[in-house]
Amino acid sequence: MNYREESLKRHYDWNGKIEVVTRVPINTSEDLSLAYTPGVAEPCLEINKDYEKSFSLTRRNNLVAVVTDGTAVLGLGDIGPEAGMPVMEGKCALFKEFGDVDAFPICVRSKDVDEIVRTIYLISGSFGGINLEDIAAPRCFEIERKLKEICDIPIFHDDQHGTAVIVAAGLINALKLVNKKMDEVKIVLNGAGSAGVAIAKHLFNMGAKNITLCDSKGILCEGDERLSGEKAYMTTITNREKLTGTLADAMKGADIFLGVSAPGVVSEEMVKSMSENPIIFAMANPTPEIMPDLAKNAGAAIVGTGRSDFPNQINNVLAFPGIFRGALDCRAKEINEEMKVAASKAIASLVEDDKLTPDYILPDALDKRIGKAVAKAVIEAAKATGAARI
Amino acid sequence: MNYREESLKRHYDWNGKIEVVTRVPINTSEDLSLAYTPGVAEPCLEINKDYEKSFSLTRRNNLVAVVTDGTAVLGLGDIGPEAGMPVMEGKCALFKEFGDVDAFPICVRSKDVDEIVRTIYLISGSFGGINLEDIAAPRCFEIERKLKEICDIPIFHDDQHGTAVIVAAGLINALKLVNKKMDEVKIVLNGAGSAGVAIAKHLFNMGAKNITLCDSKGILCEGDERLSGEKAYMTTITNREKLTGTLADAMKGADIFLGVSAPGVVSEEMVKSMSENPIIFAMANPTPEIMPDLAKNAGAAIVGTGRSDFPNQINNVLAFPGIFRGALDCRAKEINEEMKVAASKAIASLVEDDKLTPDYILPDALDKRIGKAVAKAVIEAAKATGAARI
Repeated sequence: MNYREESLKRHYDWNGKIEVVTRVPINTSEDLSLAYTPGVAEPCLEINKDYEKSFSLTRRNNLVAVVTDGTAVLGLGDIGPEAGMPVMEGKCALFKEFGDVDAFPICVRSKDVDEIVRTIYLISGSFGGINLEDIAAPRCFEIERKLKEICDIPIFHDDQHGTAVIVAAGLINALKLVNKKMDEVKIVLNGAGSAGVAIAKHLFNMGAKNITLCDSKGILCEGDERLSGEKAYMTTITNREKLTGTLADAMKGADIFLGVSAPGVVSEEMVKSMSENPIIFAMANPTPEIMPDLAKNAGAAIVGTGRSDFPNQINNVLAFPGIFRGALDCRAKEINEEMKVAASKAIASLVEDDKLTPDYILPDALDKRIGKAVAKAVIEAAKATGAARI
Repeated sequence: MNYREESLKRHYDWNGKIEVVTRVPINTSEDLSLAYTPGVAEPCLEINKDYEKSFSLTRRNNLVAVVTDGTAVLGLGDIGPEAGMPVMEGKCALFKEFGDVDAFPICVRSKDVDEIVRTIYLISGSFGGINLEDIAAPRCFEIERKLKEICDIPIFHDDQHGTAVIVAAGLINALKLVNKKMDEVKIVLNGAGSAGVAIAKHLFNMGAKNITLCDSKGILCEGDERLSGEKAYMTTITNREKLTGTLADAMKGADIFLGVSAPGVVSEEMVKSMSENPIIFAMANPTPEIMPDLAKNAGAAIVGTGRSDFPNQINNVLAFPGIFRGALDCRAKEINEEMKVAASKAIASLVEDDKLTPDYILPDALDKRIGKAVAKAVIEAAKATGAARI
């Protein structure tokens, strides 16, 4: 099937992938008086007296906004806010299906950090959480940071943290198979955009000690004056050996290659130069940094990609529905590092040891156990860290 | 039943009155590839090429935002954005039930006109229409005017125009019963807030010639230097006899009293001072300007109120679902005066002549024919005036 052509046809038929429906009966005059005036005055006054009641008396307790500015949609780039909406609606459908989370798509017609932040803040009383989506780096970092400072509900940029959570889950199981330890392996991460930065930070939280970050110009090294912002900061916590050179230089002797970069930038020779039993997650979409068969030929022990037609798909849908399900259920004020670590471990644990193979390191995206298991782990971590409000 | 007490209980049980659901199957890997990546790239690119396609390929074609700042919620006043949300959710439920319109509640945490306008504009690409709700006057006038200037979708402040459409519909039928004509009657309108101003303007569009507008200080008269903004403007089109004095003075000899003001401000004597067979719409909530039995005792031929427990309820639910249904179906760029006039006439026409009585001048709020009939009339008017895009 030509998915893109067929998808376009279906989208014309579907007439939207989400729908807002009513949870209450509106059949009699009494129904009207209870769901609307005059009865509705009472829940209004109750929230007016106690703001926290807005989470009990409106849908806010189960509602997440999926917000984009349309600047980094899939691999398509800056296609505009309205053009990003089919992705946002799809994301909302996945939220509902895998997390029973009501998610509502919003596109913001601005590329100004402060304006986007202010807009989201001003409407945040309508929601129980904010999922940022497909916003270009480095803007996405600042938007998330500023929103976290001013909002009282969880803010989560899925392209960063969702991806990081799944990569870590996959690595937990991959490392088991090759009998290596997170705090001993040498990790090379190619791509220093939003996903790359978030993966590096999350892997440190998972116990990794040695990460070398590269971008299209090669290894990022502390002191490089061309770098600024998030990239410059990352050089202070990665590449402690202060290597310089190309991606090929970085990969020599590495245990793990993680790519969130560009098609075909990794050769068989580069894989061959790695340590024994290397792990390759080549996540560029739709064409990976190296195709799985080539990587395997070159000696890769385990290969993951972003694609559903190869084994070991690094797929965010394993994470975000359960993470928000958990955050909403304990009315978390944030989604903190401990909650993300718990999510990674919960996802990894869903692959039983006796089923774990080089081609099955992550649970199937359609496995409906995942959302609940992730939510449970996230709630426990939220309670342990004081992020849970109930 | 104590509606307010019972409503509070129900709201705790309901866990929100609206819900976002999925319209597409997400059961197989193929489903994922069509509703989400990689297939979804194609509808995105299609909208990127042609913005108008956002109305075909996303839910925008059926989606209205119900937006408040929480400053004039019911008769409760400025209770705050989150506290207004039970009303907004209720409104959304009515939109769905009576117009099959997907409506989504948004509260904005600002009281600044320009900030509210900018916020709504920036997210307007997510919707096919904007219903403003429970925003205090005079801010509501400016917000609506500015949004209409910059948005390419219909903007409709229901507290103004919905009410006006129903009042006019009721008057069409009431005037039939007392055998008087819209362009000959003397109308007194008490209350110069958002509803009062909109009713006056709409009745002029319906053919009225003689309207005297009063506020709590009495008759509004041209040249009164205490007046500014919308009220000052209204004195230039109402009260052409340049009367001054009290509401009681205005009502002497009048054919119609319309109240959107305060409980009990109209006495039996004032009704007795009116012309023969006076029509009284006493719409203050929950306590009318004069109770129906007192008005009848004093000689009123027809009495309407805002309440469901008296005959002739002036209820916005007769108008907004059908008006937006029509506007969305013809992808109207606005909801113009002609469309509102058409809505009033359509609603009035649903009371057949042989059923028309002083206690039955408006169709029942639960009558499911209304939304469709209003939509049909609105579409015709939109096409006739060039407001329809399809």
